[in-house]
Amino acid sequence: MNTRKPTSELYSTFTAKMQAIADVRNAMAVLGWDQETYLPEKGAAFRGQQLTTLSTIAHEMFTATELGDILQELRSRGDLNATQRKNVELSQEDYEKNKKYPASFVAEMSQTTNACYHAWIKARKANSYAEFEPLLAKMVLLKKQETNILGFEGHPYNALLNEYEKGASTTMLDTIFDAVKTALTPLLRRIEQRPQVNKDFLHLRYERNKQWELGIALLKDMGYDMGAGRQDISEHPFTTSFSPQDVRVTTRIDEQDFGNMTWSCIHEGGHALYEQGLPAEEYGLPCGEAASLGIHESQSRLWENNVGRSKAFWQHHYGKLQQTFPDNLQNISLDQFYKGINLVQPSLIRTEADELTYHFHVMIRYEIEKGLLEGTYSTKDLDQVWNRYYQEYLHVSAPSATQGVLQDIHWSHGSFGYFPTYSLGSFYAAQFFAAAQQQLPGLTEQIATGQYGKLLSWLRENIHRYGRFYTSNELCEKVTGQPLDFQYFLKYAEDKFGEIYM
Amino acid sequence: MNTRKPTSELYSTFTAKMQAIADVRNAMAVLGWDQETYLPEKGAAFRGQQLTTLSTIAHEMFTATELGDILQELRSRGDLNATQRKNVELSQEDYEKNKKYPASFVAEMSQTTNACYHAWIKARKANSYAEFEPLLAKMVLLKKQETNILGFEGHPYNALLNEYEKGASTTMLDTIFDAVKTALTPLLRRIEQRPQVNKDFLHLRYERNKQWELGIALLKDMGYDMGAGRQDISEHPFTTSFSPQDVRVTTRIDEQDFGNMTWSCIHEGGHALYEQGLPAEEYGLPCGEAASLGIHESQSRLWENNVGRSKAFWQHHYGKLQQTFPDNLQNISLDQFYKGINLVQPSLIRTEADELTYHFHVMIRYEIEKGLLEGTYSTKDLDQVWNRYYQEYLHVSAPSATQGVLQDIHWSHGSFGYFPTYSLGSFYAAQFFAAAQQQLPGLTEQIATGQYGKLLSWLRENIHRYGRFYTSNELCEKVTGQPLDFQYFLKYAEDKFGEIYM
Repeated sequence: MNTRKPTSELYSTFTAKMQAIADVRNAMAVLGWDQETYLPEKGAAFRGQQLTTLSTIAHEMFTATELGDILQELRSRGDLNATQRKNVELSQEDYEKNKKYPASFVAEMSQTTNACYHAWIKARKANSYAEFEPLLAKMVLLKKQETNILGFEGHPYNALLNEYEKGASTTMLDTIFDAVKTALTPLLRRIEQRPQVNKDFLHLRYERNKQWELGIALLKDMGYDMGAGRQDISEHPFTTSFSPQDVRVTTRIDEQDFGNMTWSCIHEGGHALYEQGLPAEEYGLPCGEAASLGIHESQSRLWENNVGRSKAFWQHHYGKLQQTFPDNLQNISLDQFYKGINLVQPSLIRTEADELTYHFHVMIRYEIEKGLLEGTYSTKDLDQVWNRYYQEYLHVSAPSATQGVLQDIHWSHGSFGYFPTYSLGSFYAAQFFAAAQQQLPGLTEQIATGQYGKLLSWLRENIHRYGRFYTSNELCEKVTGQPLDFQYFLKYAEDKFGEIYM
Repeated sequence: MNTRKPTSELYSTFTAKMQAIADVRNAMAVLGWDQETYLPEKGAAFRGQQLTTLSTIAHEMFTATELGDILQELRSRGDLNATQRKNVELSQEDYEKNKKYPASFVAEMSQTTNACYHAWIKARKANSYAEFEPLLAKMVLLKKQETNILGFEGHPYNALLNEYEKGASTTMLDTIFDAVKTALTPLLRRIEQRPQVNKDFLHLRYERNKQWELGIALLKDMGYDMGAGRQDISEHPFTTSFSPQDVRVTTRIDEQDFGNMTWSCIHEGGHALYEQGLPAEEYGLPCGEAASLGIHESQSRLWENNVGRSKAFWQHHYGKLQQTFPDNLQNISLDQFYKGINLVQPSLIRTEADELTYHFHVMIRYEIEKGLLEGTYSTKDLDQVWNRYYQEYLHVSAPSATQGVLQDIHWSHGSFGYFPTYSLGSFYAAQFFAAAQQQLPGLTEQIATGQYGKLLSWLRENIHRYGRFYTSNELCEKVTGQPLDFQYFLKYAEDKFGEIYM
């Protein structure tokens, strides 16, 4: 049937099918967003069931023979433009991957994820890893099954990594993380020996409403379109997108911790700018999706760190900030503030870590995830494994499971292979930002006067608008002239922290 | 295949399929709720598309041959209990009705509803009926088609009425509304001749936050479970349910109008108590759904009027209210307050009308809807038709389209045949409340001391827990011993307003 149809008609049918799948997935995203922001307590069980049903439906739609036939036929057509061809190729890749998952596995994974997530919430409240362990064990078992379903070369972890970062492997990550460790350790040693900077003033009382308003103002300053998004409160900040015209962020506010809200807000703003910058006309198609999680994270990190923790950024914002919180900040100079927000110090909580020790938190999770999949580690004593790693890598000990092995939501969501993209994101960010500085004369001065328009346009032009058209590596080469190179991050770190701790 | 399976297994398959359909519909409800509460402006177009996709999927699921086969087989089984049999019978009824709708009609209706709704919003802002008219015309055309799709006896309007109130007909409504007009007109005439009561104090400034807290307190007092629900702000108050464990209400707050929030809050609370009282174990099945819109409205009206506008209710609440708004109320006695909130006066806006003139607003819409379907009226000059009716029935003229023909959301949603259920709801409410007063000794004293537990239990026991097991009429007979009788409402009205205006 399809063979007789003109390409344009076939491509329209393909697009309509992909958009309908996206509609279901975006409905799931709305239900997920609501779950984290407004869902009443007792609504959780039915909500879990509703998400499972939608997940099954989306899976059925993305494994339907009719879609496969259209994709196959479209692959044979010569009259697709480059974007169309890429959409078809990547959709077929996704389709074939989806076909590998039995429907029963999809449903079981959705149910387990829901149960695991709620067990995690409960375990955190009870500060008891033992309450979480049985469901985590089940999750790990499913993830092992998933590596076999997907297939892999080399390490089974590669199967999961590739879900988030196509082309990544343990070989690549082992190399990068070894280099990170080797390079950062002496830098951290040097910093340790310098007089420590003060950041106590960040932990005075910062009034909730004023923090909220600051966050909204920062998002708007960055160029986040509030007419196509909104901010709400959730326990764990996140960005979610229901379409390029509805990209939402969440934040949390701790009155005793100025940094908690501020940089998570800028971080999520960076994610959100990427999603708002994806081409709306490619809705539902690969070229309307983010390139990879690593690239996604590069956008959040670039705004959070390269921009939002720079001296230039606060040259513009600090005067106003002092006026907003005079009791806390009137006697703190810009220089003191800048040093305080960039304090380097080993700590327990990943999301609150500084830009350097952060990567040790990631490496610990990376090693643990590899070990769980290999069978070197078991969930049984994972709290102890966790603590050993924290001692070895960061010389700190978690006083409780909630601050230790239970701190991240990811495993309860089944997101294994996700953590490394955080580090990759920082490394991409450093390399992208170096390219932006080269290509945009006066960028630092613009940031120092609160003008981010040119930077955002540059990101839109060079990164956002391509969606998944390029892989992370291709994109990196296109934007910066070379593949991912950790040295950019190292140079950035040495310049910045060398100056702070000189 | 099905013929060999045991009934219990077949019934489980049926249940699973119905629950999956409910999951999709409830996902739509979440997206709809979000649309009215939190959706950023630019997100509307993609949201409309997402709702259309889900609506198409739900329709496909509820017209699948496999479901039809199971239903047919289950109808032939003798070993279903009464609830199961009812679930099967009503599902088959719904199934057959769904089968009548072509998928193309479902999609077109969903798209038109979305477009019509947004045109209505725009038209209201512009105060221009002309902006709304083309889409309303399209909607009326679709509704006419729908009457033919569904089929009807007598008047085409009956097809639409039965969607909301099974068994209702224009013959029945003409009779009731004639009686209402005949009975209420002399009562209104008598009231007109009495000295008018004062309600100016209801239009002083009532601070937003205090109103919000009052609303929440009232909902909790009524027995609304905040752990299985929540309240948010929307332009038009509504109740929505995603499961019996997640039933949400919305409200609006006008600082210059105390009554606006207060009684809409109690009204929606009444709807929500019904939804929270539906049997959770029947989720997705007819016996887990509301009996009809008329019965639904009886629950909101009973709480809003029979309870929430009674003197007993305010005997308990008024002292606290005076303390909350001392500037506005300290010199207003309970008696003055009670009379003020029950002022009878012809007005322009249905939702703000008193308990008596309200039904004239409904009758106007009923006559217009019948006329549109018959072709007696055209959308072209509907604003004029509207104004003529308001002159004739209520002796008032709308100074603008927004306060006239554009005031209700219903037509933009395609909800034709819905309005009469509002009046039926009031009449059922009066009859139910009379029965409750008879069966619950001391009910008035309980209300006068803020104790609604026994009333709620009575409603749960006699109405909520049955879901759709009984039709409106059957339920009314079961609860009150006789079919719907408008005389209960008339007696209530004469007693109450006779005393106020004596």
